[in-house]
Amino acid sequence: MAQDPLVEEEIMDGVYRALCNHGYAELTMQDIADECDKSKSLLHYHYDTKEDLLVAFLDRMMADYEEKLECRSDGAPLDRLVEFLARFVFTPEDTERASFHLALLEMRSQGPFNERIREQLRRSDDLLRGTVADILADGIEEGVFKAVDVDGTAALVVAMLDGARTRQITLSEGDVTEDTYTRTVAEGAIRHVVEPLLAADAEVPSLDDALEAVHD
Amino acid sequence: MAQDPLVEEEIMDGVYRALCNHGYAELTMQDIADECDKSKSLLHYHYDTKEDLLVAFLDRMMADYEEKLECRSDGAPLDRLVEFLARFVFTPEDTERASFHLALLEMRSQGPFNERIREQLRRSDDLLRGTVADILADGIEEGVFKAVDVDGTAALVVAMLDGARTRQITLSEGDVTEDTYTRTVAEGAIRHVVEPLLAADAEVPSLDDALEAVHD
Repeated sequence: MAQDPLVEEEIMDGVYRALCNHGYAELTMQDIADECDKSKSLLHYHYDTKEDLLVAFLDRMMADYEEKLECRSDGAPLDRLVEFLARFVFTPEDTERASFHLALLEMRSQGPFNERIREQLRRSDDLLRGTVADILADGIEEGVFKAVDVDGTAALVVAMLDGARTRQITLSEGDVTEDTYTRTVAEGAIRHVVEPLLAADAEVPSLDDALEAVHD
Repeated sequence: MAQDPLVEEEIMDGVYRALCNHGYAELTMQDIADECDKSKSLLHYHYDTKEDLLVAFLDRMMADYEEKLECRSDGAPLDRLVEFLARFVFTPEDTERASFHLALLEMRSQGPFNERIREQLRRSDDLLRGTVADILADGIEEGVFKAVDVDGTAALVVAMLDGARTRQITLSEGDVTEDTYTRTVAEGAIRHVVEPLLAADAEVPSLDDALEAVHD
């Protein structure tokens, strides 16, 4: 890990851009060096191997995401749930994010063979499922959601959003955001999971409003 | 394509085993030749490139799957729907199938860059969503399912099963079937999608019975 937080930040941004532009399978340290305007030897000074750098990148990404979720944990459970769904929807501004998730998908297929990558993938899975489970539990406690199997429902929600994202990014040519798989599934999740969960009449926030909130 | 159907069958079985044992990213024609006890030159005689062979394999796989689904289209819609869910559940007998889906996941990440692979992926997506949509439409027509948005619900069901499968195969070390993501999500689909869909009291087949039916 780079000691200087600014240098580390620049390197991590370089890894992100390199993954977007080159994918994971054929990514080289030189690609990353080029993307962050550093020398390859400087990267190797801070990170022994490409794998060390990529694992550090995943670790950093998870920490950022944990922090972001932490900030939002005081909203109303219904708003938080719809915002969680909205986070997975690709909008026309998300071309770069789609390329990044495509690279992540390649990296995910290494999970069974690489313990350090698998650990980060599990951390991500725990975080996503845990976030939905917390929202559901908070809503049940506040009386806005009916009692449900919190863990099973959280697994279902995470799986449907992950599947929709994978299908949208892998079935598209060129502009991934011309397809609407993630939007269709987020709307389906509102109809089949969120609405039946409501303990009393309540207005479910629109997906478009939630999309604006998560893009702030 | 090999002219002799028996030779073609042996080659296709070899591709399947090679994908299970070597994955997609680093697969060579020699790996495939070894798995089907043929020479590399014989493979090249029938298929110009590795890509030609892999596309022929995907094409064959889709045709087999279409035929299999065709055979089952005369059952009761509720049984067919639960059997569709059961098809995605990994049981302890499915270690090889899990390795195969891991290789497919690598291949799927090539979708945006390779038109022929993308065409096969789209065909698979159309087939899966179309199958669920047909089951839903038949059930609505027979009065066993309530009227729902058939296409949106089909996309939701396919996405949740695909997401669960991806998570189960990528998060596992060694024996993929020790995890239960696909079973949890199939059970969640019964609770959150199938049961609310029933127009009248009906007994939903158990997932275990459906698993036995699809493994026949």
